[in-house]
Amino acid sequence: MISPSEMRKRITETPPLVHNMTNVVVTNFTANGLYALGAKPVMANAIEEVAEMAGHADALSLNIGTLTSEQIEAMLTAGKAANKAGTPVIFDPVGVGATSFRDQTAKRLLAELDVDVIRGNEGEIARLAGIAVTVRGVDSEEPVENAEEAAIQTARTFSALTVMTGETDIVTDGETIVYINNGHALQSSVTGTGCLLSSVIGAFAARGEQLFDAACAAVSYYGCAAEKAAADKTIGPGTFQVRFLDELALISDDDLSRLCDISERKQVQQS
Amino acid sequence: MISPSEMRKRITETPPLVHNMTNVVVTNFTANGLYALGAKPVMANAIEEVAEMAGHADALSLNIGTLTSEQIEAMLTAGKAANKAGTPVIFDPVGVGATSFRDQTAKRLLAELDVDVIRGNEGEIARLAGIAVTVRGVDSEEPVENAEEAAIQTARTFSALTVMTGETDIVTDGETIVYINNGHALQSSVTGTGCLLSSVIGAFAARGEQLFDAACAAVSYYGCAAEKAAADKTIGPGTFQVRFLDELALISDDDLSRLCDISERKQVQQS
Amino acid sequence: MISPSEMRKRITETPPLVHNMTNVVVTNFTANGLYALGAKPVMANAIEEVAEMAGHADALSLNIGTLTSEQIEAMLTAGKAANKAGTPVIFDPVGVGATSFRDQTAKRLLAELDVDVIRGNEGEIARLAGIAVTVRGVDSEEPVENAEEAAIQTARTFSALTVMTGETDIVTDGETIVYINNGHALQSSVTGTGCLLSSVIGAFAARGEQLFDAACAAVSYYGCAAEKAAADKTIGPGTFQVRFLDELALISDDDLSRLCDISERKQVQQS
Repeated sequence: MISPSEMRKRITETPPLVHNMTNVVVTNFTANGLYALGAKPVMANAIEEVAEMAGHADALSLNIGTLTSEQIEAMLTAGKAANKAGTPVIFDPVGVGATSFRDQTAKRLLAELDVDVIRGNEGEIARLAGIAVTVRGVDSEEPVENAEEAAIQTARTFSALTVMTGETDIVTDGETIVYINNGHALQSSVTGTGCLLSSVIGAFAARGEQLFDAACAAVSYYGCAAEKAAADKTIGPGTFQVRFLDELALISDDDLSRLCDISERKQVQQS
Repeated sequence: MISPSEMRKRITETPPLVHNMTNVVVTNFTANGLYALGAKPVMANAIEEVAEMAGHADALSLNIGTLTSEQIEAMLTAGKAANKAGTPVIFDPVGVGATSFRDQTAKRLLAELDVDVIRGNEGEIARLAGIAVTVRGVDSEEPVENAEEAAIQTARTFSALTVMTGETDIVTDGETIVYINNGHALQSSVTGTGCLLSSVIGAFAARGEQLFDAACAAVSYYGCAAEKAAADKTIGPGTFQVRFLDELALISDDDLSRLCDISERKQVQQS
Repeated sequence: MISPSEMRKRITETPPLVHNMTNVVVTNFTANGLYALGAKPVMANAIEEVAEMAGHADALSLNIGTLTSEQIEAMLTAGKAANKAGTPVIFDPVGVGATSFRDQTAKRLLAELDVDVIRGNEGEIARLAGIAVTVRGVDSEEPVENAEEAAIQTARTFSALTVMTGETDIVTDGETIVYINNGHALQSSVTGTGCLLSSVIGAFAARGEQLFDAACAAVSYYGCAAEKAAADKTIGPGTFQVRFLDELALISDDDLSRLCDISERKQVQQS
């Protein structure tokens, strides 16, 4: 499996362009996170230009955190252009389950587009898997039982690599599974840490990298940067956000080797 | 009166969900501020989903800082759902008086919705009270004379608890009044400190807290966090913003007790 | 030529109001940067109010970074109001060349409005000059040959002061040219540093200042603040962004004098 350090090196050498169609809360943090990593962000939402922009990009990140009917049409247009160009499409189903509009939109995007990666929290992934979870805002009310099975189910149903983030992060294609134990509790006090990760997976998956490995490396890299940031000059959630951007840029290969905690890839139990 | 510490404890124990329909400048800061406090933010503006989202939320915060005609309709829809559910509605009339569109929108929202709390600066509150003030951008050109009377008038006219922020913050229901002397000058160098306070009042007012006490506690808590942040590791407005988010999360009960400066609640003079 | 210190003094004494119609990625950073400088930002995009808002403002900054068809119409409305009032209009052609929608929009805005200042990077300015550059996202793929000529050509074609930022920044009206060697490499790791500079030029150009001098002072002031921030308590791009806002507010007159590197104004070669 390719290491986080090696992936970062490739990104810095030939920065991938990530086209983000994301929510209005996290645009700035997403752009700054991608720049910090050495990638290049672009944002474009107008239906007049998204196909052209997505066609030139190396990855397309779709996020329904503050969706509108215009944005959905534009996402479909951009997604189809990305599919045609063979560009990886990452889907972040923010708050799916909170409203029927989000449920329907997620279904429609997943039905009409070839989504390569789905990245969500436990409540969101469980909802996509068809499990009855109560979502208020962007989180499930209760811890999700059998979250791992939900991730596997989601991966199978939508033929998409599924990244479910939580205390332990899971990456699964429905047949094999990897557990990643990186990250820090302060991430849940900063808005957009999940959203930015989805775009970072896009940056790692760009340029024809093997998708499963790229996603694991991205998730671990991201979590290591969070651990490093939390350990040094961070006081609370404000300074953490800032220091995290620093470490996305600066974390050393030595720190990555030392902190990186990715499990073996193993077969999932047939259910 | 319930203390800021006690209010924070309740929020941390059962985090209220605050639905924010706010301007595009302050979305990120608002979400991060609510997370720092221990509350849960959600943003949703699409008319297709706002009623459902507001119906699930514990408070609804409406802010016209970058309003559009679509957003006004969605705010009315969300506001009616919140009213029906008995959920507190906070209204932040950003820049009212700067354009007739803002004047008309503020009037319409206040006429068609039961607004529980209005939070604004002196120029905005005076404008709502029908006083001829010249507003350029989001501030009044000149200091407002008789600002206190304007706040009382606004509270009476709209039957809404009115929070007017400035050097001394005022909370009034039109019959009684409280003065709060917390906060720091650097707040006026950071965009969205007023907007975030409106949402923080929402978080404090959620869950059926007594509204007057909750608003006073919120305003004081917020100002104490600003004072603490300004006093420690802040260099200028950039570091202040970051440190302020830290202190919204971390300020100790001791610091809150020491800094909190809320006056007695007194009857207003009949005019 | 008026010094950056003197310009800052005038801004602090009578803060100009800058109306920003900008992209959703940089709204917060733009507002905070203007506040840090001592100016007053306002954002308004609704066609119902932009003429009134622009008519009251001291400068109007137009930025097409996440343009929509509604925003274009509103920019035209605001721009005409600014033109009528004699208010300086700054245009930032973010990502022009990346899509035909951006190309057409830039052309239309420049044709229908009297734009006073154009601020862009080398790829964007070259594209406006009609040079065939390949733009992916918001940057040109390759370094632009003859960038200086492109800036001169753009200034002449659109009768607009042209500010082209890069390692050396260029200010030209098509007849004379100035080179400014301030700034820091970390600026390119933070989204919106170009966009904010466009609005800062607006703040410096407000109130009838001589445009060429004001733009040179703005570009140098901005670069000096970046150098100062990078030299002190900055770790990476996260802390740099924050410290940069500090220094926009706090950089001393002594530091400005010491760091300011603006060339003589010289005649351009006739081509």
